Amino acid sequence: MTVTSPKGFKAAGIACGIKKSGKPDLSLIVSEVPAVAAGVFTTNQVKGNPVLVSQANLKGGIAQAIISNAGNANTWTGKKGLKDAWEMARLTAEVLHIPENRVLVTSTGVIAKPLPMDKIRKGIKEIVKHLSAGGGHAAAKAIMTTDTRPKEISIKVGKITIGGIAKGSGMIEPGMATMHAFITTDAIIDHSSLKKILKAAVDKSFNMISVDNCMSTSDCVFALANGLSGERVAGRRLPIFQKAFEAVCVFLAKEIAWDGEGATKLMEVRVKNARSENDAKKVAKALVGNFLLKAAVYGRDRNVGRILQTVGATPAKVNWKRFKFDWKMGEKEDIISVDLAAGKRSAVAWGCDLTEGYVRINAKYHT
Amino acid sequence: MTVTSPKGFKAAGIACGIKKSGKPDLSLIVSEVPAVAAGVFTTNQVKGNPVLVSQANLKGGIAQAIISNAGNANTWTGKKGLKDAWEMARLTAEVLHIPENRVLVTSTGVIAKPLPMDKIRKGIKEIVKHLSAGGGHAAAKAIMTTDTRPKEISIKVGKITIGGIAKGSGMIEPGMATMHAFITTDAIIDHSSLKKILKAAVDKSFNMISVDNCMSTSDCVFALANGLSGERVAGRRLPIFQKAFEAVCVFLAKEIAWDGEGATKLMEVRVKNARSENDAKKVAKALVGNFLLKAAVYGRDRNVGRILQTVGATPAKVNWKRFKFDWKMGEKEDIISVDLAAGKRSAVAWGCDLTEGYVRINAKYHT
Repeated sequence: MTVTSPKGFKAAGIACGIKKSGKPDLSLIVSEVPAVAAGVFTTNQVKGNPVLVSQANLKGGIAQAIISNAGNANTWTGKKGLKDAWEMARLTAEVLHIPENRVLVTSTGVIAKPLPMDKIRKGIKEIVKHLSAGGGHAAAKAIMTTDTRPKEISIKVGKITIGGIAKGSGMIEPGMATMHAFITTDAIIDHSSLKKILKAAVDKSFNMISVDNCMSTSDCVFALANGLSGERVAGRRLPIFQKAFEAVCVFLAKEIAWDGEGATKLMEVRVKNARSENDAKKVAKALVGNFLLKAAVYGRDRNVGRILQTVGATPAKVNWKRFKFDWKMGEKEDIISVDLAAGKRSAVAWGCDLTEGYVRINAKYHT
Repeated sequence: MTVTSPKGFKAAGIACGIKKSGKPDLSLIVSEVPAVAAGVFTTNQVKGNPVLVSQANLKGGIAQAIISNAGNANTWTGKKGLKDAWEMARLTAEVLHIPENRVLVTSTGVIAKPLPMDKIRKGIKEIVKHLSAGGGHAAAKAIMTTDTRPKEISIKVGKITIGGIAKGSGMIEPGMATMHAFITTDAIIDHSSLKKILKAAVDKSFNMISVDNCMSTSDCVFALANGLSGERVAGRRLPIFQKAFEAVCVFLAKEIAWDGEGATKLMEVRVKNARSENDAKKVAKALVGNFLLKAAVYGRDRNVGRILQTVGATPAKVNWKRFKFDWKMGEKEDIISVDLAAGKRSAVAWGCDLTEGYVRINAKYHT
C-alpha cells in the first residue's frame, strides 16, 4: 500500500549521512519504463535549487526517477547549490542508465547550508543496489524530516493502481503545493489529462492543509504514470480515475496535517453555503490557520469566540443573521463546521492543534 | 506618567466582580470639560456591541468619558448585548451628569457570554467615587486581560502633555486598530487634525504589531483632547505635536508586543529599500507574524532560512541578488533588519516570540 504498489515501480530508502541522527535520508523511486509526468511546485519567491532542476526536467512531460534527500534543503546555496542539484540528477541518471532529463530531484531540511555532496555521491551509488518493488515504505521513511511517521497509501480502480507517499510536517501552509508528495500510477493517461487531474487534486488536498501558515521553499508534488497496467484512462473513465487520484491526495494531505509538528489532534474545517469557492476556501484556511483556535483545539476548550473572531476577520461574505457553526470534539480529531448562509459553495481544510511541542521543536531546530 | 497626566483628566479603576480572580475589571477616564475626540476601530466583521456604541457616540467629534470593562467582550451577545452597551453609556453619563452621547464604551474578554449587568450597574455607581487626577494607573490596571503589566506613558511638548494607556495581549494582529489604547491630551486642537494625527499614528504603531495574527472584535483606540493646557496645536506646531503623539502610540504598541501572551522577548523588524510602503509593511508584518521565526526567536536560534522563507512567501518585490538581512539577538529584544534592495520605502513592525506559555494560556482560556 505505497508508492511502489502500481506495476513497474521500484524504490529504496537509505541513510547516506546527511542527518546527524543516522536516520534514512536518501530515497529513490524509479519506473521500469518512462512515465508521463506532471508536477506542482512551491510559489515561494525563494525556491530550492532542486525545484529549479525538477521544473526544467518536467518540461518534456516525461520522467522515470525521483531522487530525494532529507536533512538539507539545498536552498539559498548559490550557484554551487544549483550545480549540486544538477549533479544529483546526472549521477542518478548514470546509475540507472537513463537520460538525465528524466530525473526529478527534491531536497528538504535546513536552508542556506551547502549540500554535503560527497555523502550524496556515495549515497546515489549505494541506493541503486537497494531498489525493489517492495521499497516504497523505505522511501517513505527516507523523505521524512520532523515527521513522526511515514505517510503512504495505494488504491485500486479496476486494473489500475494509484500509490503515493508524502512528507510534512513544518512550513506547511496552503500556498500552492506545500510539502513533498510523490504519486505513482500504472494507468495509461495522456500528459494534459494527468496535469489537469494533478492540479485539481492538489487544490482540494495539499493546498487545503496548514500546520503553521509557513510556505516552504522546497515543496513539490509529482505524479508519474507509467502505463504498465495496460488500462487507458480517457473519456468516461477520467472522472472515476480523477476521484481515486483525489482520494490518494486527500489521504496524504490529512496524514501530513495529522502529523504536524507537535500535533496531538487533526482539525477538519468544513465551510458551506459560501458565496464563492474562493470565500469558502478563505474561511476554511483562516480557521485551520488560526493560532487561538489551534490552541483551543489542543486545550479541548470549545471556545466559540475564536470561530467568530476568525470568520469575521476574513473578507468573505457572511449572512450574520443566519450564520451557524458547530464544533464536534473528538479524541483524535475535531470537526468544525461553519455555515456562511451566503451562497452554495463549500470547501474543506485540514490542520492540527498548536501545542507546546510545536514550540519546542521549532525553538530548537538548529541551523 | 499616564493617561491622567494631561491637565483636567481624572480616572479610576476598581474590581466590580466580572473577573473571577477578583482583579480590577472596571475603569473610567473622565475629562473635566468636553474634549475633541477621535477613534479607530477593529475592522473585524464581527464587532463588539461597545464598538457600535462608541462609533455612534464619536460621530459628533466630542467625548468626555471612557467606561471600560475587562473580562467580558460583550460581543455576539445579540440585541440584549447592544442594549447593555448603551446602558453602560447611559449610567456613566448619569453619574457624571453629562450627556449620554459624550460617553465612549469598551469591553474586552470572553466572547459570546452575556455581560453581568448587575455587577456593571453597581460598579458604575461605585467607580465615580474613586475618580482622581492620580487615577490613571488604576485605570491602566483595570483594562488588563491576559496582560501581565499595565502599559502607560506621558510626554510633554511645550505646555502640552500627551498621556496614554493600553492593553494587549492576545488576538493582536495588525488589521486596523487591534487592541485598546486611550490617549489623552490637554492640547487645543481641531477635530479634523486630531483624526488625521490619530490615524497616521495608529498606522505606524498599533497597526504594526502582531502577537498572533488574530484580529480582535473589540479593538479601539481613542484620542481625547480637552484643550486645558491653553496651547493651540495648528500650523507649524502640528508636525511637532504629531511626532510626540506618534511616540506615545509607538511606546504603547511596543509595550503590547513585549507583553504578548507567553512572550519572553520583543521582536523588532525593520524593512528598508522596499519598492512601496505597502511592500515594506507586508514584509515587516509577515516576519513578525511568522510561527517559525517567532519560535526561533524564543529558542535563541539564528535560523536564517526562516527569514528567507517568510520574505519569499510575500508578494513584495525583492532584488534577490542584492537582498541582505541581519539578526541582532539581544537578551530581551531581537532586531531583524531586511534590505529588499528594490526601492526606497521602509517600515518597522513589532511582535514577540512564540512560547510554550502562549500555548498554555490559550489552551486553557476557558469560555
